[in-house]
Amino acid sequence: MDFRLIQTCPDSKARAGELITPHGVVPTPVFLPVGSQATVKTLTPEELKDIGISMVLANAYHLYLRPGISVIEKMGGLHQFMAWDGAIVTDSGGYQIFSLAPLSQVSDEGVVFRSHIDGSRHFITPELAIRFQEALGADIIMALDECPASDAGFEEVWAAVKRTHQWALRCQRAHRRDDQALCAIVQGGVFPELRRQSVECLTSLGFAGYAIGGLSLGEPKEVTQAMVEETVALLPEDKPRYLMGVGSPEDLLEAVSMGIDIFDSALPTRVARNGALFIRLGRVNISNSVYSRMEQPVAPDCDCYTCKTFSAAYLHHLFRCQELLAYRLATIHNLSFIINLMSKVRVAILNDTFSSFKGSFLKDYKPANEQARLNQKQRWLQARKHRE
Amino acid sequence: MDFRLIQTCPDSKARAGELITPHGVVPTPVFLPVGSQATVKTLTPEELKDIGISMVLANAYHLYLRPGISVIEKMGGLHQFMAWDGAIVTDSGGYQIFSLAPLSQVSDEGVVFRSHIDGSRHFITPELAIRFQEALGADIIMALDECPASDAGFEEVWAAVKRTHQWALRCQRAHRRDDQALCAIVQGGVFPELRRQSVECLTSLGFAGYAIGGLSLGEPKEVTQAMVEETVALLPEDKPRYLMGVGSPEDLLEAVSMGIDIFDSALPTRVARNGALFIRLGRVNISNSVYSRMEQPVAPDCDCYTCKTFSAAYLHHLFRCQELLAYRLATIHNLSFIINLMSKVRVAILNDTFSSFKGSFLKDYKPANEQARLNQKQRWLQARKHRE
Repeated sequence: MDFRLIQTCPDSKARAGELITPHGVVPTPVFLPVGSQATVKTLTPEELKDIGISMVLANAYHLYLRPGISVIEKMGGLHQFMAWDGAIVTDSGGYQIFSLAPLSQVSDEGVVFRSHIDGSRHFITPELAIRFQEALGADIIMALDECPASDAGFEEVWAAVKRTHQWALRCQRAHRRDDQALCAIVQGGVFPELRRQSVECLTSLGFAGYAIGGLSLGEPKEVTQAMVEETVALLPEDKPRYLMGVGSPEDLLEAVSMGIDIFDSALPTRVARNGALFIRLGRVNISNSVYSRMEQPVAPDCDCYTCKTFSAAYLHHLFRCQELLAYRLATIHNLSFIINLMSKVRVAILNDTFSSFKGSFLKDYKPANEQARLNQKQRWLQARKHRE
Repeated sequence: MDFRLIQTCPDSKARAGELITPHGVVPTPVFLPVGSQATVKTLTPEELKDIGISMVLANAYHLYLRPGISVIEKMGGLHQFMAWDGAIVTDSGGYQIFSLAPLSQVSDEGVVFRSHIDGSRHFITPELAIRFQEALGADIIMALDECPASDAGFEEVWAAVKRTHQWALRCQRAHRRDDQALCAIVQGGVFPELRRQSVECLTSLGFAGYAIGGLSLGEPKEVTQAMVEETVALLPEDKPRYLMGVGSPEDLLEAVSMGIDIFDSALPTRVARNGALFIRLGRVNISNSVYSRMEQPVAPDCDCYTCKTFSAAYLHHLFRCQELLAYRLATIHNLSFIINLMSKVRVAILNDTFSSFKGSFLKDYKPANEQARLNQKQRWLQARKHRE
């Protein structure tokens, strides 16, 4: 993988570039929809292409449990298994093991964890995380990291930073396939000093890119942003920067302005299945009775398949009847909204108009209430098993 | 609507023809997928077209309850509401009122029933059934009928036949839109004499076509077939004949050979969502572990999107993970199988090879076990509320 930096915003840290991968050129900043189980929920690969998606995120933890790495290897790898010829990133599964699997026990050697599906016992090491991701064959793979909870104290986070460093080194040594780019994940919780330590360790080893992990886990938004800003300032200019787990329009714009190139989040697809749709003014719920007789599409200025084809009243009806088509049409709309937003962001950076674009977008867009957002996130983190 | 009879099989009653509707020419024999709530579950209109579907069935009872007839009328009718420019049949809702709605009370005037969704009380008359269907705007609409249970006795069925006759007359008088073809529904349960009476009454009134209702409700298959045979023999040659609720491959072939032109059934789409897929040899379940590592598609000779794009192992994986894409891919496959079957049937009739085609198909195709089928049907009839 090659990363080419094309333009930097004169009055923010925003940057436009491109990732050259074995499965196509990915313009950055880029948002990756989440396809943990080798499917972006409800959609076919053709629909992803139509929406303008160039890269998706899959998850080694989920795929290791189901269908099993050897099944996908036998099918010729993940691209062929899910019939997706665009680029793929696989997460190593560190975050999922620590957040989804009950009773995980970490040691320097690796992690013992129990499957969140059937309780079966498994052991993963950095070397195995690489072996699995090499078998899956994604374009970008991630080192195994230890991801402490958002309320972990300094000592616990410090230990995780050190272990993440050792594991990153072992991943690097285990990594053989040179058609796959190995990226490391910066940890350090909400402690600037530990973030700095983590960056220094990892950059000294030299990876193809750097992800910022351990954020958006329920901490206040200002803390997230402060940590991102601190971390990005220490990362090398010439490597892509990936902020994991961020996907609301307002958060994307802020993080782009701090110099992030890559994002993933289940948020746009997850809230879509609950009927929450992005429009220019904020997030609306299609189940609201105001839509029951609305002839226009939910977003009249949107050119996604859903808005071009169906009235808001039809979408409202499908949600009310819990028709499966509802979840699909809403997913198409929300992903289109985010992809279009990122595309406009990139054009603005290239035209040196990013700051005014961001200001004008955020002036009209009303984010979800912060306290509601935190409560929702907490509920979700607790209940998310099996979701995505 | 115009019905043109093109060819009759020399050694069975099978016939090939076409229905000329305001929304396209529909070659017969034809199978209609069920889209009770203005959506064929999981699929978009484009996918229906790609599969080769020319006509779908919607349901006035379901649409009356949700979203309400006036909503669809305001949206410009059902075609526009669901963005389907092919032909549509609406069922009057008689069958649904008698099978889904609790505590329905029938009188000569009409039926009082409670919504199966919220228990609210409603009253429908033959005139209202027509008014609603005119507002929906389907190409073919059905007279309101009284549909007794499969175990109803002679007297009860006889009363229903008489009332269905009176109601058909009132529907005919109430019917105004001459771009919609009004068809009547033959009742008579499992009593040949009552079937004959019902046909005589209805044909004396003269409808655009005749449906055979009140069958496939859990009675043995031989009884269904005997009733169909008796009824068809009495129906006019020059009008289309519609057997309601039949959709398994073996039943379709038998009924075609008896002279039926139109079919609908939720079976292919419903069983698809349970992972039961039609292949040349019968019905298989993709959840079976035999598929867990199968690189070929579930039906290697099938040219549907699902089989052309994905391995059986991938589909198996999606079902195991209860991924929403699973239901969609399985629906595409099963509808394609049935549509392709009907297309081959039609070609065979046109080529005077129908009997050998039927024999050769049924020689290889192993139908679902009859007792299992009956039990399954009974379970489904009891539990089907909300399904489709």
